Amino acid sequence: MKQAILAYVETVTTEGGPGFVPVESRIAVFDNDGTLWSEQPIVMLMFVAERAKEMAKADPKIAADPAVQALLGGKLGELDGPERERTLMRLLAITATGMPPGEFADSVGRFLAAARHPKLGVPYRQTVYQPMLELLAFLRENGFKTWMCTGGGVDWVRVMSESYYGIPPKQVIGSTGAYEVTLVDGKLAILKKAELTHINDKEGKVAGILAQIGRIPIIAAGNERSGGDIAMLTYAQSSPFPSFQLMVDHDDAEREFAYAEKDGASLEAAQRNGWHVVSIKADWLKVYPGP
Amino acid sequence: MKQAILAYVETVTTEGGPGFVPVESRIAVFDNDGTLWSEQPIVMLMFVAERAKEMAKADPKIAADPAVQALLGGKLGELDGPERERTLMRLLAITATGMPPGEFADSVGRFLAAARHPKLGVPYRQTVYQPMLELLAFLRENGFKTWMCTGGGVDWVRVMSESYYGIPPKQVIGSTGAYEVTLVDGKLAILKKAELTHINDKEGKVAGILAQIGRIPIIAAGNERSGGDIAMLTYAQSSPFPSFQLMVDHDDAEREFAYAEKDGASLEAAQRNGWHVVSIKADWLKVYPGP
Repeated sequence: MKQAILAYVETVTTEGGPGFVPVESRIAVFDNDGTLWSEQPIVMLMFVAERAKEMAKADPKIAADPAVQALLGGKLGELDGPERERTLMRLLAITATGMPPGEFADSVGRFLAAARHPKLGVPYRQTVYQPMLELLAFLRENGFKTWMCTGGGVDWVRVMSESYYGIPPKQVIGSTGAYEVTLVDGKLAILKKAELTHINDKEGKVAGILAQIGRIPIIAAGNERSGGDIAMLTYAQSSPFPSFQLMVDHDDAEREFAYAEKDGASLEAAQRNGWHVVSIKADWLKVYPGP
Repeated sequence: MKQAILAYVETVTTEGGPGFVPVESRIAVFDNDGTLWSEQPIVMLMFVAERAKEMAKADPKIAADPAVQALLGGKLGELDGPERERTLMRLLAITATGMPPGEFADSVGRFLAAARHPKLGVPYRQTVYQPMLELLAFLRENGFKTWMCTGGGVDWVRVMSESYYGIPPKQVIGSTGAYEVTLVDGKLAILKKAELTHINDKEGKVAGILAQIGRIPIIAAGNERSGGDIAMLTYAQSSPFPSFQLMVDHDDAEREFAYAEKDGASLEAAQRNGWHVVSIKADWLKVYPGP
């Protein structure tokens, strides 16, 4: 795997070579959950659950929301695919609505500083993947811009993207909610609204890349679990330049987690299209960076 | 004016100084029409009118659309403010709907290569403002990222932003339409849809900056005509860092155009908030770069 990446990057950075890619087109997009850090559990969901439970106690209207009901009834684990994404995004909207973006970011920051992974017992910051940190740094050294393209809420992920991965807020593409912006008597007020404006999953990831980057990435990395990254990797492969696709297979129950996609669509697409499959068990010497 | 900009940039780039701004927060946003190039007429509107007229000839359903009716009846000039933006965006949607983004970009590129300014008789490329090109370059030399934040359609503006101004597609924030992205049997198809998802004008510009940059700009430049940039300049002023606001006043009938905003809100906001007003007549030695 490492050799394949090194060879590819040499190809696209060799000036005068047949596969040379100008620096403005060296764009790499990474899914977050399950690709850059562990997704058992999905961390944003832990945040949302904690906040929503607090809010449901204080407000019966919030407690009655179907998404909150699913959470309180322990039904979230049963949901899958788009319904899971929608419920999760609805919960995120509930926990952020009516809040200025800065206040929301602060609440995420406080959560991340205090919370511990329920199984591993470490701060979530230590559940990022060491080989991916190395890959991100290596790509940046070679003129790539590294982007995140996640189903998570963009305002949530931007709180940690730069300090955890070196990916600045402007290079984060995620699911979005509307903002209420008002300018009255020269005073500007900004509040997050409950309305979802974009779900950045599956084909939505391609739309998100179109909206924010406006160019086709040449590297795309995702993981198997829900088929959420197939469209994004297919899109990168449509580049006129040489491209590289990477699909993480979670097959290491001992050091990380082992799980498989119900219909196996991601690994099947990888095989059909010649994408590189990363076996955590076989390919990663070290999974987490450690404290 | 030039002295004020030089002094400001020295303040924010002087390491150890009281106004130093780290490089990741050196973000400058520029309106396009009337700020980076002339907006009499609005160039995107000329493109849209040409395309919509062609399409109306071929399709009676398109000819019957209220926005096309306004165009064909010569009523567009009478519209103002949000209604004008909406009609313009609707026309843009009509001329782009059902087209892959690349095909749409090609049609914009062909238009820009062939069209001439109706009064000045030069390609639109020559109606960009020379002092603004110099300002953009100067800011970039000083570690700033220069962004465009325009009411124009993002896919339209991205065709010219890099070659005209050195602003890459990823740093263009504009009005957006939805994409239809489908992945069937491993084949990805992308079409532009008529549905508008964001109008990047007035308070919408703040929402656009939140969505794409995720940080508050410290420099914002706009112009008077419709009040479209007041919210954006107010937002930049809310930065905890020293900030700089610039409002272009179109007061040079001889070398460019002279026009004033109906209610004078932009210049009034500039005065109240201490923003810098650029008089094209008094402050610009040269307006256009020439052939």
